[in-house]
Amino acid sequence: MSADNLFAQVLGTPDADAAFSDRAVIAAMLRFEGELARCQERLGLIPAGVADVIERQARAVTIDPGSLVRDAQAAGSLAIPLVHALTESVRTLDPAAAAHVHFGATSQDVIDSALALCTRTALACIEAAVDRAIEAAIALARRHAADPVLARTLLQAAGVTTFGWKFAHAALALDRGRRRVRTTARASLAVALAGPTGNLEAFGEHGATLRAALAQALGLADPGASWHSHRDQWVALATDTALLVGTTAKIAGDLALMAQTEVGEVRMPASDRTGRSSAMPHKRNPVLAMRVLAASHPVPGIVAGLLAGMRQAHERGLGEWQSGLAQWPVLFAQAIDSTAALAALLETLEVDPVRARDNIDAQFGVLFSPALAHRFAAELGRNAAHDLVGRLCEVALRDRIPLRDVAIAAMGDDLRLQSIPATAITALFDIHAAAAPAGREVEALLGLIARP
Amino acid sequence: MSADNLFAQVLGTPDADAAFSDRAVIAAMLRFEGELARCQERLGLIPAGVADVIERQARAVTIDPGSLVRDAQAAGSLAIPLVHALTESVRTLDPAAAAHVHFGATSQDVIDSALALCTRTALACIEAAVDRAIEAAIALARRHAADPVLARTLLQAAGVTTFGWKFAHAALALDRGRRRVRTTARASLAVALAGPTGNLEAFGEHGATLRAALAQALGLADPGASWHSHRDQWVALATDTALLVGTTAKIAGDLALMAQTEVGEVRMPASDRTGRSSAMPHKRNPVLAMRVLAASHPVPGIVAGLLAGMRQAHERGLGEWQSGLAQWPVLFAQAIDSTAALAALLETLEVDPVRARDNIDAQFGVLFSPALAHRFAAELGRNAAHDLVGRLCEVALRDRIPLRDVAIAAMGDDLRLQSIPATAITALFDIHAAAAPAGREVEALLGLIARP
Amino acid sequence: MSADNLFAQVLGTPDADAAFSDRAVIAAMLRFEGELARCQERLGLIPAGVADVIERQARAVTIDPGSLVRDAQAAGSLAIPLVHALTESVRTLDPAAAAHVHFGATSQDVIDSALALCTRTALACIEAAVDRAIEAAIALARRHAADPVLARTLLQAAGVTTFGWKFAHAALALDRGRRRVRTTARASLAVALAGPTGNLEAFGEHGATLRAALAQALGLADPGASWHSHRDQWVALATDTALLVGTTAKIAGDLALMAQTEVGEVRMPASDRTGRSSAMPHKRNPVLAMRVLAASHPVPGIVAGLLAGMRQAHERGLGEWQSGLAQWPVLFAQAIDSTAALAALLETLEVDPVRARDNIDAQFGVLFSPALAHRFAAELGRNAAHDLVGRLCEVALRDRIPLRDVAIAAMGDDLRLQSIPATAITALFDIHAAAAPAGREVEALLGLIARP
Amino acid sequence: MSADNLFAQVLGTPDADAAFSDRAVIAAMLRFEGELARCQERLGLIPAGVADVIERQARAVTIDPGSLVRDAQAAGSLAIPLVHALTESVRTLDPAAAAHVHFGATSQDVIDSALALCTRTALACIEAAVDRAIEAAIALARRHAADPVLARTLLQAAGVTTFGWKFAHAALALDRGRRRVRTTARASLAVALAGPTGNLEAFGEHGATLRAALAQALGLADPGASWHSHRDQWVALATDTALLVGTTAKIAGDLALMAQTEVGEVRMPASDRTGRSSAMPHKRNPVLAMRVLAASHPVPGIVAGLLAGMRQAHERGLGEWQSGLAQWPVLFAQAIDSTAALAALLETLEVDPVRARDNIDAQFGVLFSPALAHRFAAELGRNAAHDLVGRLCEVALRDRIPLRDVAIAAMGDDLRLQSIPATAITALFDIHAAAAPAGREVEALLGLIARP
Repeated sequence: MSADNLFAQVLGTPDADAAFSDRAVIAAMLRFEGELARCQERLGLIPAGVADVIERQARAVTIDPGSLVRDAQAAGSLAIPLVHALTESVRTLDPAAAAHVHFGATSQDVIDSALALCTRTALACIEAAVDRAIEAAIALARRHAADPVLARTLLQAAGVTTFGWKFAHAALALDRGRRRVRTTARASLAVALAGPTGNLEAFGEHGATLRAALAQALGLADPGASWHSHRDQWVALATDTALLVGTTAKIAGDLALMAQTEVGEVRMPASDRTGRSSAMPHKRNPVLAMRVLAASHPVPGIVAGLLAGMRQAHERGLGEWQSGLAQWPVLFAQAIDSTAALAALLETLEVDPVRARDNIDAQFGVLFSPALAHRFAAELGRNAAHDLVGRLCEVALRDRIPLRDVAIAAMGDDLRLQSIPATAITALFDIHAAAAPAGREVEALLGLIARP
Repeated sequence: MSADNLFAQVLGTPDADAAFSDRAVIAAMLRFEGELARCQERLGLIPAGVADVIERQARAVTIDPGSLVRDAQAAGSLAIPLVHALTESVRTLDPAAAAHVHFGATSQDVIDSALALCTRTALACIEAAVDRAIEAAIALARRHAADPVLARTLLQAAGVTTFGWKFAHAALALDRGRRRVRTTARASLAVALAGPTGNLEAFGEHGATLRAALAQALGLADPGASWHSHRDQWVALATDTALLVGTTAKIAGDLALMAQTEVGEVRMPASDRTGRSSAMPHKRNPVLAMRVLAASHPVPGIVAGLLAGMRQAHERGLGEWQSGLAQWPVLFAQAIDSTAALAALLETLEVDPVRARDNIDAQFGVLFSPALAHRFAAELGRNAAHDLVGRLCEVALRDRIPLRDVAIAAMGDDLRLQSIPATAITALFDIHAAAAPAGREVEALLGLIARP
Repeated sequence: MSADNLFAQVLGTPDADAAFSDRAVIAAMLRFEGELARCQERLGLIPAGVADVIERQARAVTIDPGSLVRDAQAAGSLAIPLVHALTESVRTLDPAAAAHVHFGATSQDVIDSALALCTRTALACIEAAVDRAIEAAIALARRHAADPVLARTLLQAAGVTTFGWKFAHAALALDRGRRRVRTTARASLAVALAGPTGNLEAFGEHGATLRAALAQALGLADPGASWHSHRDQWVALATDTALLVGTTAKIAGDLALMAQTEVGEVRMPASDRTGRSSAMPHKRNPVLAMRVLAASHPVPGIVAGLLAGMRQAHERGLGEWQSGLAQWPVLFAQAIDSTAALAALLETLEVDPVRARDNIDAQFGVLFSPALAHRFAAELGRNAAHDLVGRLCEVALRDRIPLRDVAIAAMGDDLRLQSIPATAITALFDIHAAAAPAGREVEALLGLIARP
Repeated sequence: MSADNLFAQVLGTPDADAAFSDRAVIAAMLRFEGELARCQERLGLIPAGVADVIERQARAVTIDPGSLVRDAQAAGSLAIPLVHALTESVRTLDPAAAAHVHFGATSQDVIDSALALCTRTALACIEAAVDRAIEAAIALARRHAADPVLARTLLQAAGVTTFGWKFAHAALALDRGRRRVRTTARASLAVALAGPTGNLEAFGEHGATLRAALAQALGLADPGASWHSHRDQWVALATDTALLVGTTAKIAGDLALMAQTEVGEVRMPASDRTGRSSAMPHKRNPVLAMRVLAASHPVPGIVAGLLAGMRQAHERGLGEWQSGLAQWPVLFAQAIDSTAALAALLETLEVDPVRARDNIDAQFGVLFSPALAHRFAAELGRNAAHDLVGRLCEVALRDRIPLRDVAIAAMGDDLRLQSIPATAITALFDIHAAAAPAGREVEALLGLIARP
């Protein structure tokens, strides 16, 4: 796979590029080798003085990504030419030390550990973007806590809620996603040190101690075991990240629907350069929502591949691991892109409570049919009331007359309903009263969010 | 979708059938309605005395699944005809009470809550099976802690480890999976109570209190918010379950490879009725491994669908929710099947340490080439030693001569190596010494497993 | 897996149930065995007279699905107990004949062939539904060929097209899907006859002849080779069916967007029983669109599983085949459901050209900005014209003044534009003229559809 | 998304990079604009003489990918800045001509058409690799047509077939895949010309004629309709390519299993640089098989994303199209990589018939149990013969005695079997006779392959 292409780049962000850039991956691999030697020297596994040389050269050696890739293609692994280059570099300073580079480790150790280090960078980007998105959603929730807006189910107007209620739920879902990723990362970002076959055999009785020391040196978790072919904890980070991405799509998808020309309850930012059409001067495309949705779209497929790839044969699979390595940065790049675009979207979103109110009014009060039906149920029974109100709604919409008026007129025709005072009916159609419970709930919902 | 078919049934288990059976789902929905009325009465949301009638009828009413489905197809939801039937049943006892059935709730409330209740049953089956699998793996790990077996990478013999080490890692991975599901379930198995548009509007100021009370009555979590269209916490249970299933596939896949005719390190149980071929009298098919793998195979695709389905429009999506309902029981049935088959597989597995030893011996000691190369590296440098040993391995395999002998002969040809005593070389080829670190690690690994 | 559940049943249809019902699968398997014997007798592979007995009993034997499944669970395959039951049944009539039941065949032969027979039934259902959907789309396309409606890109109003143009493209896409499935089915619905290891060894030199004869007897294709573990042609039928399902989702998704409360360009049928909400008397839910979308949603995940399952080890894989068997009927059931729901949706759809025209008018003519920009480009250059018109659009929408009037006013301010006559500008804003090319194209598009 | 990373590069090939390189995509987009102007001038849609300038500048203009991407990120589409740059370039030569660049087209037209052109290049790479793979498989099939090798089902030895039979089926499956892609490409590689909203409105009555002319100029198909948001024919090319990739995985997976240390029936090439382990001098990793499997692994997930993305709203979706653009080159890169690696694998594969024969012999003749059971069935009945032979197989394997000898001994104990001559039994165990039907079938199978 060579996954790069202009279309992917257009959807990308510099942060996503940086976390797993050639430079970042090579630096992380070399850092692993340096710290490995340092820890091994401390445990007496390699001669005193050797680690200094290895670590110095791990920082100093220049590795050209292009030739590294070419050599790795023949070898089947990036680690082989990288270790070779480091060894040669060490040899120029201290031939004896060269024999101790990468001692007892295997390709997968350095690659998996380096990927964990780069993933930590990626997660920092994701977390920063999600933090911004949550703050923006909270601000929107507070600013529009009580502003009524249509609630919709199955793409049909269904009732009245408030913008604040919607944004508070969005903030909460992002917060849950952020917490899941953070908690899981603590265990998933673990050092890999297993040796060629997993059992740390080269280190005799010091295997577990060395792994723990190396974990601490790299700021990674000590998994307490080998995870080279049991990938559950690693893939758990991918699934939790995918859940967070799924939430970004939910939020952006809703906002795109609310930004439809015919709905117009929110507007996405337009500038001289953003969202213009090449052919249509009047268009202002919801580019940021598009970016969230485009970035999130491939994530379920990538996750499916990682889950299927958990079936890795024996102590290292044939293809699943290598394929997973190539897909992993893509997944996190998608997550960086989707969260960053969502943050920008929420930070610049314009809410139009007036248009939202117009949309509610255009429903002629049929949204309040559940309350009306409940009121009638005492006299008519639940099912008959439901049916009657359904028919009154049809009349209201057909004749463009408020349901309240239709209902009051109909009540005159039914002896059982005549005793209900018209004011009681009118009260059922108060938009702000209907929206009030949603508005009141906003602060309680926001209180559930774990603030830093 | 009508997902049932003979081929699926062959791969199924009674437990998987029971958790989401028609009867179980209907009972869970009715239980929701009964407890809802009970909690509402306590909060004064419905008249005193009504809950008794509703709850009694929720237990007494008989609902035919076939006609429920037919009515639900027209209505688009199972809840509508179920609530209708319950209401009619209540009416026969107490017409006034009928108006208070399902008060303020919506279809999705009763369905999502019922699904959470049924999922709890399914998780109990899964957990029981995983417990069995872990116990069996621990027993195998202890019994064969020190028994050497080939370690393999990229499907090639790579070194020596022990059966115990392999089973201990399997047990650990299952334990991680079990813990993830258990922890996530605590939050995911939550009551759904949102009302038609999510904001609990019918309950005035009592919405949150009612939801908490209902959660407690049903033994479910109180999510503190509506989750009808923010599905992240719900789907999190699916992804964590999928991770557990992925681990079952990893373990069963490895055992199937070890059970290959040419490898023969493990054998799967055969009985008069299990695993016979219709055409080949000599065949003993690894049926239990097949069942694990067949059950796990569709899981990544189902998870991808659930993740993609997180993008649910507004307060209830158009299709994503309904499709997710139908897929959910399938996912957990697959998990029940895969974990149950793995438990049976591990409980009946026969390990053949003699055959495993034969397989090691058939490698002529080339497995110890890393140690040999490391020993030579002091004299020759790391890369030259690696290359020399590679050539010696080729000779050993080609001429079917132990690498040790080839190496000792070669040392005579190289002045730099002549000082190494032959005994030092011989020591490198001690299979039990090589396997010892893996064997010693077993108890430490098992100690990481959280025992009940 | 036991995939059946109430939620799946609600989304299902009797046709989808029938094609792969227990009865249908068993009958197809028995038919295979009967025709196999008949063809073998003709080729002298089994004694004369034997086929009559086998075929008679294949029709007469009663096999209880429940006990068949139980026996198959132990054996790992449905074929083993089925062949056993048939053999016993034959033995009661003619003990000598019993030795010739299923001669030279293997489990996979009878199962794959039976699945091909059942799939043929499923495809007939799908084709009938798609035929209906295409006819309905053609009728809508003709009836509303010239009725203007907004074209929308990125969920924003973008221009004017016609309903007819949209329905004609829908019909064309369904027609392409229908043709792909039909063409592929000719090769994919092939007999499976391979023998235990694929090479027809039991039949000596008659293998190919027997396979061809059996294919003809069953009305299936002769694949000319064994396909027991090379599944490409089989999975091709799944992918082509998935493409057809994808088109149903595209069409239903668009109609659901057009049926949104705020858009209202189409309405989906409502009856006393269809699409009512349990809580909201005014709601008319787009149940048929929901059914299409819910049925289509899991299909990509199933296809991903079938594609991944193509990697089947050697002459029969461990789990991939069995899992694929269980998923196959699900895929086709989803396809039956989605196409049937789409046919019903298109047959009952109500189009509202008046509302569509209102939606166009609400855009104040900014939809015609490309034509205006093109007209100005001659005087201003392309980019400057694009920018100017973009600004005029903003004015039009902000001040709710037709863009035509805004443009004519602006032309007075720019010397380069003053020469353009106002009538030339007015002509650009003629909705029916703008829609005319789309309307005229309808019959040409419909002419591309292959009519039976 | 920024999908590039070192791990992906290691698995990549220059061909995969080239087909969708920045340079190739930009050149294809510019070519579209040049040919569009040429065709428009011929139809009188733009003034005479203009096309020359536009086409010249489309060849001459230099567009920096980096700044193109930056501008496209703001605009949401690559086409907008590209058209802008071309327009400016044309303006420097002929200001009047600049107004006619990209006339009547939209971003998606130029992008989809350019992607079709680049995909044609990618398919040529894939086809060349598959041609090589098929030739290599044919050569292997002929060279080893009659060489016996174990057939295996459920990873267990099941019978005797020949290498030639296996390679012939591999060649056939690749040929089917090649033909499917080739046939589908003829329709899928179509010009996109739809205009902003799909209905070619800017071209008046000349829309269809222009599209046909442009198709011919670019060497693409004329789709006869707009396909900007009906993506079925486009995605059909992806699914058919995925089927081909699935076949590469099937073949490489089998060869990897046959190359296992314990099986050794095939060997993959080793050189000084290929397949060495960083830690294990003796290892020769099956790198080419790994490359096939790693390249094929993500394909089902990508296809699932493309299928799900068929649901594109209205005349251009929000995210699905853009995400699909970014995924498309990845899919074809994977296909180039998997087919190229398979070709190299088959071209260098070493087959070891001696080892294969050893593996057969190690089964002590139990592979012939079906023939033995069939022979006994005449005397004992089918089921009793099956059971008896099953028991004899167990004895043979346990005591390491040829089944033939075990059977002949057992026949002495059963009066009904004593009449069978020992020579008749011995004949059943003739490996070459058993393999003969498979060997004879090879040329017939190869005859089904469409040779160029």
